[in-house]
Amino acid sequence: MAASLSKAGRTVERIRALFFDVFGTLVDWRTSVAREVRSVLSPLGAQIDWEGFADAWRGEYQPAMEEIRTGRLPFSRLDVLHRRNLDRVLERFRLGRVGEAARAELNLAWHRLDAWPDTTAGLARLRTRFRLAPCSNGNISIMVDLARRNGWVWDAIAGAELARDYKPTPGVYLSAAAAFDCPPEEAMMVAAHSSDLAAAAAAGLRTAFIARPEEFGPGTGETSPSVSVDVSVPSLVALADALGCA
Amino acid sequence: MAASLSKAGRTVERIRALFFDVFGTLVDWRTSVAREVRSVLSPLGAQIDWEGFADAWRGEYQPAMEEIRTGRLPFSRLDVLHRRNLDRVLERFRLGRVGEAARAELNLAWHRLDAWPDTTAGLARLRTRFRLAPCSNGNISIMVDLARRNGWVWDAIAGAELARDYKPTPGVYLSAAAAFDCPPEEAMMVAAHSSDLAAAAAAGLRTAFIARPEEFGPGTGETSPSVSVDVSVPSLVALADALGCA
Repeated sequence: MAASLSKAGRTVERIRALFFDVFGTLVDWRTSVAREVRSVLSPLGAQIDWEGFADAWRGEYQPAMEEIRTGRLPFSRLDVLHRRNLDRVLERFRLGRVGEAARAELNLAWHRLDAWPDTTAGLARLRTRFRLAPCSNGNISIMVDLARRNGWVWDAIAGAELARDYKPTPGVYLSAAAAFDCPPEEAMMVAAHSSDLAAAAAAGLRTAFIARPEEFGPGTGETSPSVSVDVSVPSLVALADALGCA
Repeated sequence: MAASLSKAGRTVERIRALFFDVFGTLVDWRTSVAREVRSVLSPLGAQIDWEGFADAWRGEYQPAMEEIRTGRLPFSRLDVLHRRNLDRVLERFRLGRVGEAARAELNLAWHRLDAWPDTTAGLARLRTRFRLAPCSNGNISIMVDLARRNGWVWDAIAGAELARDYKPTPGVYLSAAAAFDCPPEEAMMVAAHSSDLAAAAAAGLRTAFIARPEEFGPGTGETSPSVSVDVSVPSLVALADALGCA
């Protein structure tokens, strides 16, 4: 830990902007989506494994984005991909009878995610020293609604909708840094997923790993990074400590 | 005024998002640019009309954007256009000897503009009821720096860099509304310029005019709109009153 902090001390001197992964890193999507799905479908008589439904919906996430990353489909915002994936997952759970209004309401589950307990306090401290933006695959309106819900203040919304492509494509990280007039090496990507950080590092950004061991349910998330990172900490509050924020 | 407020009362019920012009509407660019230019060029021995320099620089603004709006040049961020225009204006003021470092510093003048006295308090009140974003021709980093300098909190940064085109092209207003999942008629454009509001209204947005009579120097700005608008007020604080914000 001392080595990590010392390295962070050298790194941080030139860092001006922090970019954040959101789903899993800042918010507990699984518990929140399960709760929102239950609140819509339970009154309609559905009795299913709510966390299982959330997992199945999230399971369609990477394949849907891959269609766009490879150029097979033109860019669509994540709300559109989520809705397409929802229709598929409802069918799989034998809920094909669910109507249009309920589906539209279900899709808003991703706008109503709760932060992990340390997120809001950590972001407030980090904001005293750095420019902050999400660099998420979620669209701008998801980011805006999550910020209002959880009391976050962003300097801007970077990520997929600005870049018109999906992480881990390098252009998404680079367009975030460019939006802040920031050379990549003066920006740091903060995420709970080694794959996201590996891609950010390959694009020239600094990286911070946040452990979210409960992301996919108890004991399922990454507890330590599987790639080399500049900082590895258990929470955003610990990141604020490591980066010298008051 | 009573008629305007009554109309505003009916209009506001469906408004969810406010978009703001920035140069001239939220900030006094002329006084600020003159001050910043003086602080860079005066130590180099220049003795010129500082406000005149600001006016000349601003005078190159519309022609530069027109090259992009018409498709003659690909999209470039306003910082790039400002720099090109600066080089031209320095030549005109017989300051062609000014070096690269000073030119780069001069270009940051547009990141260091001061708000009109009512702006920051007005935005804070408007934020209690509406989603807020700038919809400016300035790039994201200009918006971020002006927000930090003046204590504004945005939900997102809309405008030219997101749309990759310049106002008054309709797509700039429409991409702002779309970023907030907002039908155009549930968004309101706020500006001190009738031409901006006419274009926003043509794209389907509601409109609010703010009088900035000093924009180009005493008695030079628009004191009332030359087009039909939904609300016309003398300040952002008055707008917060008109739109029923606490």
